[in-house]
Amino acid sequence: MPEAVPDQFQGFAVDKKENWNRPKLTSYDRKPINAHDVVLKNETCGLCYSDIHTVQANWSPIARDNLVVGHEIVGKVIAVGDKVTEFKIGDRVGIGAASSSCRECNRCKSDNEQYCKTQAATYNSKDVRSDGYVTQGGYSSHSIADELFCFKIPDDLPSKYASPLMCAGITVFSPLIRNLGGADAKGKNVGIIGIGGLGHLALQFANAMGANVVAFSRSSSKKQQALELGAHEFIATGEDKDWAEKYDDYFDLILNCASGVDGLNLEEYLSVLKVDKKFVSVGLPPVEEKFEVSPFTFLKQGASFGSSLLGSKAEVQQMLDIAAKHNVKPMIEEIPISEENCAKALDRCEAGDVRYRFVFTDFDKAFTA
Amino acid sequence: MPEAVPDQFQGFAVDKKENWNRPKLTSYDRKPINAHDVVLKNETCGLCYSDIHTVQANWSPIARDNLVVGHEIVGKVIAVGDKVTEFKIGDRVGIGAASSSCRECNRCKSDNEQYCKTQAATYNSKDVRSDGYVTQGGYSSHSIADELFCFKIPDDLPSKYASPLMCAGITVFSPLIRNLGGADAKGKNVGIIGIGGLGHLALQFANAMGANVVAFSRSSSKKQQALELGAHEFIATGEDKDWAEKYDDYFDLILNCASGVDGLNLEEYLSVLKVDKKFVSVGLPPVEEKFEVSPFTFLKQGASFGSSLLGSKAEVQQMLDIAAKHNVKPMIEEIPISEENCAKALDRCEAGDVRYRFVFTDFDKAFTA
Repeated sequence: MPEAVPDQFQGFAVDKKENWNRPKLTSYDRKPINAHDVVLKNETCGLCYSDIHTVQANWSPIARDNLVVGHEIVGKVIAVGDKVTEFKIGDRVGIGAASSSCRECNRCKSDNEQYCKTQAATYNSKDVRSDGYVTQGGYSSHSIADELFCFKIPDDLPSKYASPLMCAGITVFSPLIRNLGGADAKGKNVGIIGIGGLGHLALQFANAMGANVVAFSRSSSKKQQALELGAHEFIATGEDKDWAEKYDDYFDLILNCASGVDGLNLEEYLSVLKVDKKFVSVGLPPVEEKFEVSPFTFLKQGASFGSSLLGSKAEVQQMLDIAAKHNVKPMIEEIPISEENCAKALDRCEAGDVRYRFVFTDFDKAFTA
Repeated sequence: MPEAVPDQFQGFAVDKKENWNRPKLTSYDRKPINAHDVVLKNETCGLCYSDIHTVQANWSPIARDNLVVGHEIVGKVIAVGDKVTEFKIGDRVGIGAASSSCRECNRCKSDNEQYCKTQAATYNSKDVRSDGYVTQGGYSSHSIADELFCFKIPDDLPSKYASPLMCAGITVFSPLIRNLGGADAKGKNVGIIGIGGLGHLALQFANAMGANVVAFSRSSSKKQQALELGAHEFIATGEDKDWAEKYDDYFDLILNCASGVDGLNLEEYLSVLKVDKKFVSVGLPPVEEKFEVSPFTFLKQGASFGSSLLGSKAEVQQMLDIAAKHNVKPMIEEIPISEENCAKALDRCEAGDVRYRFVFTDFDKAFTA
């Protein structure tokens, strides 16, 4: 007997940016269930720094009353739309930072659906098919997303470990495989800047892919940790002023996982790339933080600077396979979801006080719906 | 009987930046002839905007008394070093913007010698092997370069047309073939910004490679010209404010050939790229002109921004073959080299008054050496 889908969902919501770290338990009308939609009863949700940027209105205004964030969601399917083919009630499924798209454009049809120009984010974004409905995230009892943005979670991967892979994991995995010629990166030298929510997964995936992995951090305080996570070399850029000379013509890819770009010496990083290689930034700072670049900065290596958005569904599947095979696992701090704990986790994450990902749990105790 | 190599060469030299447009006929000690060096008696030399940036000290200080610029050189070989294998006296040979390198590093050995970290530019640069000698360019009677940076000119290509290919030609050709998967670009959409010294060659080469070529210019004044040069479509960005909407998800590559970046709307150009594609800037502005970029600018397309430096010797050969096959030819204004004409050409080029390349000729009349 399928579980009924309530008309109202419950979630921990922020009403305005001044209250960004004080979400309140709220009920709200759910999104209509469209033909390709999958409805989850949520079990876990990771806290991504994007959640903080969003509730602080660092990227764009809060687009609805009582916004619920969270986009590293795992839950059980309790209902599916008429045209859903891939999932059935009872499946354990993940949702990341995107939740619907046009399904018809060239990008949707060529494993780049995350780049669909109409793509709706999982929260604070207009749903593609539900006129005017602004999406709600996963600090909530239930979630609804198009099956194109739902991912089957392997049976032996607990929800709490799967959650951070839905956004942080795929955000680092996709640029690794796209810029290293696929999942076999033997013989490639990969630099990972920033050992945090994104970086600690990038180190593991790059290592799992067979690359030689170099971790960059400002100080050496995270050296031991980085080596344990899969780095083969460690550079404390604030302590070893000559590092760039030693690593001349070395890197096939540098992936910036730091959440800001202020103070990051782009010119120095570009100088250690091999010819025609990329510096890819996946950490997203407040919109007003910018790099200044001159074509000269890039000239000496034919280098380029770019970014990358999530990954395709096909890449999520590949990521989950590699994670299973090589035991890639986020380091998490579990925190039962509640008003008090949402506040605590948001505050501590903003202060950088988490190694390396909060995952909200115990949803069945928090929500009555 | 080989021609003797004089100990002094003659050239039109600038003594300080204030006199950037008043080169004077000067004699100077030539560079020693090293084992891999080729000595040319010059026949023609193109005027590249780099010449102006250099004598105006826009990029770096003038590094010697009486600097001679010019790096689109074609001439006849009159002497070769002991280890030269590829050229003999009497060959017609071109030299571009680089003139020597270490010959031993990974880049030198993998068809990226132009990116060698010790690479010496053809002028205003310390030669790799001649202790302290600051190189002199091609507004001169003779030139000397390592054979790795000398290119055999096909017999049926007149020197005056070959000259601009040595820098402008290869500067646009290399990023085209590197970013379009080789010299066959059928089915690819390529945007070329700026119809000038670089751009008018980029249009021809992209068309010769089979791409669908879109020319960008601020106004439509060069539309007819662009279409004649090989563009299939033309966008006047200053007149068609909605152009970016019409070209959504369209381009496989955008090559910026404009000599400045001020006022260029990078965000708009990045918005029309397909996923994972590049905006490559080969026009080089004064060092203080910069783009401001945020990772967000790149996110929606997984786009990247990069630059590119000249091309390898192998690519120059490929370029000359394609130019011969498809009749790619720079549009030039010939100008007999003299103090008066150097001044005139520099002034007019700085004012944008040339379509599209000055080539200095009649070297035998200007130099007595």
